[in-house]
Amino acid sequence: MLKVGIVQHSFLEDVDTNRASNLTAIENLASEGAKLIVLSELHDSLYFCQTENVANFRYAEEIPSEFTEFYSQAAADNNVVLVTSMFERRAAGLYHNTALVFDTDGRLCGKYRKMHIPDDPGFYEKFYFTPGDIGFLPIETSLGKLGVLVCWDQWYPEAARLMALRGAEMLIYPTAIGWNPDDTDAERKRQRDAWITIQRSHAVANGVPVISVNRNGFEEDPSGQTSGIDFWGSSFVAGPQGEILYMAPENASAEVCVDVPLQHSENVRQWWPFLRDRRIDAYDDLTARYLD
Amino acid sequence: MLKVGIVQHSFLEDVDTNRASNLTAIENLASEGAKLIVLSELHDSLYFCQTENVANFRYAEEIPSEFTEFYSQAAADNNVVLVTSMFERRAAGLYHNTALVFDTDGRLCGKYRKMHIPDDPGFYEKFYFTPGDIGFLPIETSLGKLGVLVCWDQWYPEAARLMALRGAEMLIYPTAIGWNPDDTDAERKRQRDAWITIQRSHAVANGVPVISVNRNGFEEDPSGQTSGIDFWGSSFVAGPQGEILYMAPENASAEVCVDVPLQHSENVRQWWPFLRDRRIDAYDDLTARYLD
Repeated sequence: MLKVGIVQHSFLEDVDTNRASNLTAIENLASEGAKLIVLSELHDSLYFCQTENVANFRYAEEIPSEFTEFYSQAAADNNVVLVTSMFERRAAGLYHNTALVFDTDGRLCGKYRKMHIPDDPGFYEKFYFTPGDIGFLPIETSLGKLGVLVCWDQWYPEAARLMALRGAEMLIYPTAIGWNPDDTDAERKRQRDAWITIQRSHAVANGVPVISVNRNGFEEDPSGQTSGIDFWGSSFVAGPQGEILYMAPENASAEVCVDVPLQHSENVRQWWPFLRDRRIDAYDDLTARYLD
Repeated sequence: MLKVGIVQHSFLEDVDTNRASNLTAIENLASEGAKLIVLSELHDSLYFCQTENVANFRYAEEIPSEFTEFYSQAAADNNVVLVTSMFERRAAGLYHNTALVFDTDGRLCGKYRKMHIPDDPGFYEKFYFTPGDIGFLPIETSLGKLGVLVCWDQWYPEAARLMALRGAEMLIYPTAIGWNPDDTDAERKRQRDAWITIQRSHAVANGVPVISVNRNGFEEDPSGQTSGIDFWGSSFVAGPQGEILYMAPENASAEVCVDVPLQHSENVRQWWPFLRDRRIDAYDDLTARYLD
């Protein structure tokens, strides 16, 4: 069993306040025995992508920076593997949405630069983030190979599969997703169910656990053009058959330890050996945009 | 709206009896207004793959054959597009698990030869079926392009994606899946949920409806080596957000018409434009068996 700590929080304008609150959660979960702790996407700030505003580039930090020092120290002090998410400044005019993983000794194990970047009203990420250029590479840690992906990646079976083919022992999605408050209850339900379903399916298709950590709470649209975003929480952990091991509430923060049975993956992949039967001779066209 | 008729049946040893029962269902559903009717996998026989027995090759038929004449006539007489599933004899010693689609005039629109072939205790399909060599090609009909896949294919996001990239307007899975009666209730639930989840995820990932038709009822293992298969029914239709539009019972046959809102796909793909953002520059390795 691997004890995984999940931090589902809402955030405020002030970065230091958010960091302090994340650190307290890390300390609490570590004291409960968590060995791996996962934060949500862009957990040091409000979700600033609701508008396209150059002033928001002030939230970006480099590697290394105060961000990496802070979370490296948090991992080391609490003896945990820590999955974090940052707005990375790589060069002037070149930014990424990047997940960083720190090991129990504070060492930066590796980074993942979000490959699939969304762009729709309220989620103007293509303005801020250059699509990742590292590819889908698991990050090696003292707890094994972590298939860390970010938010919009969760809709792509290709991303999950490539991580699994490269040996990822679990899939981890820091995310920031919510409802348009103007949507009907029925539409909200469809969207949240779709989000849960597609991520559970990555567990099923690949026989690995999935850990998805979202933020919760309402954040207004600074431009006033939309009704803001009601982040739907619902962070969850699924086992390698897609079975839900834990799900957080929609409307409240949650700091929870979840036991993940890693050994179960070996059994599941023997019972349902999907990797054995992939028709790799017939998959060439998956690299096409469209086939017409 | 497209009115889709689903035929979830249990079957008997006698082929003529099964055919007559399928025909009655087709007639009933057509009289209720169904324009597309989908039968389950290998709907003319018991699920003979519970054992490896050369005598079972007697169930195989050619194209054309009595099978094609019978279902061609059924489609034409009832003015429906009909999705059928057969044990195809292609040549001596060369057999496939093949779906055939007939149009409203009885014309054979096309065939799909099951690409992913399972093989585990009770499901010895690799003995009977050569993996398909046509690939993942939608079948053109008077109702549009149908992405017809079969059973084990349902576990592969690659198959669904390739159908969608080639313009499939819906995904259709004739299937034959059930429980080992020795499994615990908890394990049964996990398996059935995984099966529903992965197929719903294909709807989500591709923004198309999914129609999955299973058989129901218990069939014993002629060899006596296992406790047989309890086919779990649960045929279902999902909309393009993966939302369940209809689900059949686990333990009873069902002949049902379901309204499928095809126009909804256009909207869903605009809201969540997953096809727009696929990282086709980074998907080359999807054709690898494993990457280590």
